[in-house]
Amino acid sequence: MIVLSGGLDSATVLAIARHAGRVCHALTFDYGQRHRAELDAAGRVARALGAARHVVVPLDLRAFGGSALTADIPVPKDRSDDEMHAGVPATYVPARNLVFLSLAAGWAEVLGAPEVWIGVNAVDYSGYPDCRPEFLESFQRTVNLATRAGVDAAAGGRSAIRVVAPIVSMTKAQIIRRGAELGVDFALTHSCYDPDPSGAACGRCDSCLIRSRGFQEAGVVDPTRYQTAAGVVR
Amino acid sequence: MIVLSGGLDSATVLAIARHAGRVCHALTFDYGQRHRAELDAAGRVARALGAARHVVVPLDLRAFGGSALTADIPVPKDRSDDEMHAGVPATYVPARNLVFLSLAAGWAEVLGAPEVWIGVNAVDYSGYPDCRPEFLESFQRTVNLATRAGVDAAAGGRSAIRVVAPIVSMTKAQIIRRGAELGVDFALTHSCYDPDPSGAACGRCDSCLIRSRGFQEAGVVDPTRYQTAAGVVR
Repeated sequence: MIVLSGGLDSATVLAIARHAGRVCHALTFDYGQRHRAELDAAGRVARALGAARHVVVPLDLRAFGGSALTADIPVPKDRSDDEMHAGVPATYVPARNLVFLSLAAGWAEVLGAPEVWIGVNAVDYSGYPDCRPEFLESFQRTVNLATRAGVDAAAGGRSAIRVVAPIVSMTKAQIIRRGAELGVDFALTHSCYDPDPSGAACGRCDSCLIRSRGFQEAGVVDPTRYQTAAGVVR
Repeated sequence: MIVLSGGLDSATVLAIARHAGRVCHALTFDYGQRHRAELDAAGRVARALGAARHVVVPLDLRAFGGSALTADIPVPKDRSDDEMHAGVPATYVPARNLVFLSLAAGWAEVLGAPEVWIGVNAVDYSGYPDCRPEFLESFQRTVNLATRAGVDAAAGGRSAIRVVAPIVSMTKAQIIRRGAELGVDFALTHSCYDPDPSGAACGRCDSCLIRSRGFQEAGVVDPTRYQTAAGVVR
């Protein structure tokens, strides 16, 4: 089971899982995100990297609001490194990875899948609490207490659900290099929080800035299609 | 924030929270459950007990299947105590309380609500792993690592989200007595997993058997409207 957003992190994680010989069931959430372009990207990535199945689950988090990604709150632009590391940003979606991992674990349990893979990253990231290793470790304990799979494991039955986060400690440049080695076509991926209607990236949100710098540092050509004020792709 | 199913447990928890002076935002999940009658019951209970707000969130768990409550799997009937305590039953919905608590925590965080109340019970229950105190304790740690509220608490800011499960160690009879004391009208609640189209209870699923015995033991009149083979309310 893999949580697939359509961004370059989860695409690379899917490539790593496939390279490790896993049969992958990919799970994407349509949670009312303003960057719905990532849903199409997730479909393209799942196909290109040979996911056995791809399911998009509707889960409208707009009912709760509270995030620049799901409510009428501006997406921060042109933030410096210091600003990005000063706290939890407006684009934080409350409890998002907790919710996504919980649902992925539920589906994993039904399928008998022993692993849930997720592309969280705690190095070049936006300061989201639910991307930290200590969250993942705690979730791992919780999910085994919450599920039949965990009960069965405790009774000596089949394996409990294991959370796998292979890029949690990598820099964005390392992730991009690893993805490139494994043949990920990053042109299929989408990272921007505030794309234009055509899906072109703004180039100025945290996600664009971190991604763009990652390609530079990795020495890999950035295939992202950016908006420009003049409407010309730069 | 309170997770409200429409059953008698969560109705009693809402009454306890209101009695403790809490302003309650009630959250109900429309997860494709076969006993959809509980959604109407949740609305009735929320109104009767003075919830400040009641939101029903659609979250179709039928995409995953794997449970007698969401897939075409028969609901077990007429089970003995021994059978009920022999393991996780077919009506277990994978990771359900983990998913529900995660979403409740997300909404709590947006509202600034410091508590998430839930009517799980580990005494007279169907053997669901996600009703046990050890699951709740682990979830409590996880949610504080997953959320801005937890980060803020760690930094000395506002309180982190606290999971409150006031009936986890009570028997069904104790819950019913407490609810009756607090004026819960149990006729508004719905517990049956396999109601007929009119919402009448089957009287034979685990949930009906545990509920019915609870009323007997509590010495409280059972107001449940049961189906009978002859179509006569018994």
